[in-house]
Amino acid sequence: MSDKIGFVGVGRMGANMARRLKDVGYTVSAVYDVDHARARELAAELGAMAPEKLAAVTAASDVIVTVVTDDAAMHAIYATSGDSLLTGAKGKIFINAATITPNVHVAVDKLIVAAGGTAVEACMASSIPQARNGELYLMCAGDEGAYAHVKPMLEKMSSSLRWIGGPGKAAQVKALVNMLMNINTAGLAEALGLGDALGLDLTMLREVFSQTGAGSRVLVTDGEDMQNREHETYFSAAHAAKDSGIAFELGHEAGVIMPLAAATKSQYDLMVEAGLGDLDKSGIAELTFNDRRPVNLADG
Amino acid sequence: MSDKIGFVGVGRMGANMARRLKDVGYTVSAVYDVDHARARELAAELGAMAPEKLAAVTAASDVIVTVVTDDAAMHAIYATSGDSLLTGAKGKIFINAATITPNVHVAVDKLIVAAGGTAVEACMASSIPQARNGELYLMCAGDEGAYAHVKPMLEKMSSSLRWIGGPGKAAQVKALVNMLMNINTAGLAEALGLGDALGLDLTMLREVFSQTGAGSRVLVTDGEDMQNREHETYFSAAHAAKDSGIAFELGHEAGVIMPLAAATKSQYDLMVEAGLGDLDKSGIAELTFNDRRPVNLADG
Repeated sequence: MSDKIGFVGVGRMGANMARRLKDVGYTVSAVYDVDHARARELAAELGAMAPEKLAAVTAASDVIVTVVTDDAAMHAIYATSGDSLLTGAKGKIFINAATITPNVHVAVDKLIVAAGGTAVEACMASSIPQARNGELYLMCAGDEGAYAHVKPMLEKMSSSLRWIGGPGKAAQVKALVNMLMNINTAGLAEALGLGDALGLDLTMLREVFSQTGAGSRVLVTDGEDMQNREHETYFSAAHAAKDSGIAFELGHEAGVIMPLAAATKSQYDLMVEAGLGDLDKSGIAELTFNDRRPVNLADG
Repeated sequence: MSDKIGFVGVGRMGANMARRLKDVGYTVSAVYDVDHARARELAAELGAMAPEKLAAVTAASDVIVTVVTDDAAMHAIYATSGDSLLTGAKGKIFINAATITPNVHVAVDKLIVAAGGTAVEACMASSIPQARNGELYLMCAGDEGAYAHVKPMLEKMSSSLRWIGGPGKAAQVKALVNMLMNINTAGLAEALGLGDALGLDLTMLREVFSQTGAGSRVLVTDGEDMQNREHETYFSAAHAAKDSGIAFELGHEAGVIMPLAAATKSQYDLMVEAGLGDLDKSGIAELTFNDRRPVNLADG
């Protein structure tokens, strides 16, 4: 617990992970975000520094947790020239918790190792409240020795912690989890949309689904929200589009035929195009209920 | 329990429903199947008649349970000329338990009413073992008075019995249940197929799915079978193709946009084309694992 922890990318997930670690006694040394004001605010809350340079986060920390938005942001913070987390990385452990392309984990892992550090993926199959309460579902991969070192800390952040394997492997599993979750979600939206069009009682229909082969985890988490159009964002449609894209690309590279994954990606891409990307993933029901369809998609 | 029960369509589902009713004390008066030998065999087992005419089933029974294959078979047994269940239908109750197009239920309901009988849909969201053990999940619709009369009998056949509404409504719900189940199944097959292509441990992957937003009922019932290629048939791919077609048509008529339902229908149609229609619905994984793909579909 004497490790000093730095955070890069302190949106709601990253900020809640930092708050959790502070709660359980860790020292959050430095926080950084491309939105400097956001970083300064959290730093003030946690008694941390808010340096304007990434290299200063590495310098101030033993372990650096990164929760950035996408592949491009990941490449940016591990830049090979200019300001970078890689500066002074020798002996430091980098825990990458963003949902990014598995191959980017592999590439960044190599850069970190070349700079004398070690990298751990900690892929999350959970959302913002779980981050705050230390109840994340974490799948880890990368350097096994570094994992052993940070495991006590990761245990404080999670209700379930699992080692998957070498670099990129946890991200692959995460991509598959989200791909399947998104398929089940998109399918549920179609079934409820059709039920609505047929004039069926959707509460009854959801109950029947739950008692039959149509049951699923997303039925529990998203079904009622789809019915009631309550799309407060826990996992945004834009994220779902991105994750579906990662899985689709993996499938494409591996030569696997995945028509449902393709259809799901198209639906979430359509949500983003329709300006609905900030809704929760349950908002996909806005595409499948006849009386909700966005005007700019009215022709299908 | 003094009602005499006739059965039309005694494949594995129908035969097991008849056995169950006999077990609990009902008189199975007559059984009929287009395969006359099959009907005679069951009749001998149950001490029933095996008439060669449909009209004789109606004549010998107070309640006639029909479990036929598809819309065409349903129209055939309720023909408006020639041999038909409608002959002598006055005062008789017809329970239609096949999975057919909702509109066919509506059309047959009208014919039965015109002939002086009443009709009840008893749509099943369960499979063969549940029929044998009186543990069907039954969704009923049609004539509410007739339903009240046969309810004690239906209770002996089911672990869950539910009234949905007027003619065709239970079939609509059943179509939606199977549509969503098939989508979730097709999606699961893609996720496991991709996991396999990536060299991931599929037992681990299924466990992760079960603990996350990727969890579903079909993961429990079909996931291990997909991994192990155990496709003993409980619910055949050909049935899944048919049911997906019913739901897809409902969606088309209602103007609902359903790309996942469409992709799922295409996959199950492809199984039938590839000669895999007799496999269990879990056999859809034969399309999504790279090293399993049928030779005649090798080009995708």
